[in-house]
Amino acid sequence: MQVGVIGAGRCDEATAEKAERVGRLLARRGAVLVCGGMGGVMEAASRGARAEGGIAVGILPGRNPAEGNAHLTVRIATGFGDGRNILIPQSCDGVIAIAGAYGTLSEIAFARKLGIPLVGISTWELDGSFPVTDDPDEAVEILFGRIGG
Amino acid sequence: MQVGVIGAGRCDEATAEKAERVGRLLARRGAVLVCGGMGGVMEAASRGARAEGGIAVGILPGRNPAEGNAHLTVRIATGFGDGRNILIPQSCDGVIAIAGAYGTLSEIAFARKLGIPLVGISTWELDGSFPVTDDPDEAVEILFGRIGG
Amino acid sequence: MQVGVIGAGRCDEATAEKAERVGRLLARRGAVLVCGGMGGVMEAASRGARAEGGIAVGILPGRNPAEGNAHLTVRIATGFGDGRNILIPQSCDGVIAIAGAYGTLSEIAFARKLGIPLVGISTWELDGSFPVTDDPDEAVEILFGRIGG
Amino acid sequence: MQVGVIGAGRCDEATAEKAERVGRLLARRGAVLVCGGMGGVMEAASRGARAEGGIAVGILPGRNPAEGNAHLTVRIATGFGDGRNILIPQSCDGVIAIAGAYGTLSEIAFARKLGIPLVGISTWELDGSFPVTDDPDEAVEILFGRIGG
Repeated sequence: MQVGVIGAGRCDEATAEKAERVGRLLARRGAVLVCGGMGGVMEAASRGARAEGGIAVGILPGRNPAEGNAHLTVRIATGFGDGRNILIPQSCDGVIAIAGAYGTLSEIAFARKLGIPLVGISTWELDGSFPVTDDPDEAVEILFGRIGG
Repeated sequence: MQVGVIGAGRCDEATAEKAERVGRLLARRGAVLVCGGMGGVMEAASRGARAEGGIAVGILPGRNPAEGNAHLTVRIATGFGDGRNILIPQSCDGVIAIAGAYGTLSEIAFARKLGIPLVGISTWELDGSFPVTDDPDEAVEILFGRIGG
Repeated sequence: MQVGVIGAGRCDEATAEKAERVGRLLARRGAVLVCGGMGGVMEAASRGARAEGGIAVGILPGRNPAEGNAHLTVRIATGFGDGRNILIPQSCDGVIAIAGAYGTLSEIAFARKLGIPLVGISTWELDGSFPVTDDPDEAVEILFGRIGG
Repeated sequence: MQVGVIGAGRCDEATAEKAERVGRLLARRGAVLVCGGMGGVMEAASRGARAEGGIAVGILPGRNPAEGNAHLTVRIATGFGDGRNILIPQSCDGVIAIAGAYGTLSEIAFARKLGIPLVGISTWELDGSFPVTDDPDEAVEILFGRIGG
């Protein structure tokens, strides 16, 4: 199973803690973490996944694999900039969106368009078509309930 | 100058009329129309642009140039699916979003992230960060005011 | 009809003359020229197409439409680097490869894989599976014979 | 360290054995295997890597992660068709090309253009700019000598 975690490349400490918690919970359930591979939410989630012995995959915006954060197991250098955003929901069984701005909004839009199960943590509420909570444990619980993991 | 028109591949008659009007107005101002090349809003805008002697470019989701609507001057077969959505704002001086659903939302998100001038017609209001009107003439007027055309 | 012209971003004067001649001949036949939009062969072919009143489309490697050469009618900023190379044969009815190095080789490989009619001018001979000449007029003649234009 | 293995989606038994051997050798050296994720050479290399406890990443051409072969640890569904070919050399420290046809040729071209260390096994000889052998052990040895692994 692959689960995407999407969110901004910079975030405050409270958001990073939630992202790291999500990364840990995903790894404990045996899911591969797929993220954008950069800092902020992506880095915190990767750190959490690796701390539990999981695999963290970064789908990087640039052409240099070394630009990824230090916790990644796998670095895919796309060079597509934000165009790589579609690859995360498209490759995953479910997606968790944490806080974030317009980049995260584009990924939420793609997840909704592709019909990939999506749960938000303190993020865009949009049209009420997916659950949003501020508790990472609850978010992971809801997501796995939806994807049957 | 290149202006993107984004919107869904199916739409009602009233929306199509607005899209066609936008296509006409863009061509009259000498702008190249860039769109997703398919039906609905994209087809109506392309038809309008061509009716005024303009150029209509379709950035298609599939790998077959023939899938584009009949009014395109240029067909780029990307094969990227909705991943091609970023190419439209990224290639344009400004973007007009007409109605639309999640695909259009992803393009709005990209336009906002990239800082490309954006005007909406009867579309996602989102966070109030860009003007939305229901009048195509006003939308084109506002957009050109922003991009200085 | 859309015809791709592929070749390096820098070239000698003799190669540029051939590329410009190809651009002129394509425009005279009413074909849209699709190229990588940068300098060298791409710029010369674009200049030729525009000199005959044709349309020149640049599928740019970067994210800034302004990086394209001065003769383009349409600029698509992909941001995909050389990953954009597949878009040219994929979008075209036929392709002419002029001189070039590894980037051009990747496009020849894609044209062959996709089964797009291909003619070379002073380029990689490879496996003898497509005609190579050093005369631009002959190359265009052969190509249109193959694509039935 | 990430090493790409490129080759066709169908291959004879002798080629599959070489690809599986390469996959095993890469995993023993602790490298992550990155490949196109489909059958033939890609499947055999993935099977070899997993048999040694390694990680096998598939950069898939389609939009459905399930299309990847059964041995993948990670599946990235790009939807880019052969356009995804650039992602493999671009993401890797080195690349081994095994047999293959035009798709493999495009990847060889990208590896050469990007300057990524490349070794061939029974593949396109091209311009003599990279070593080609028919022995998988020798190929891995040469590659790691070049990338310093």
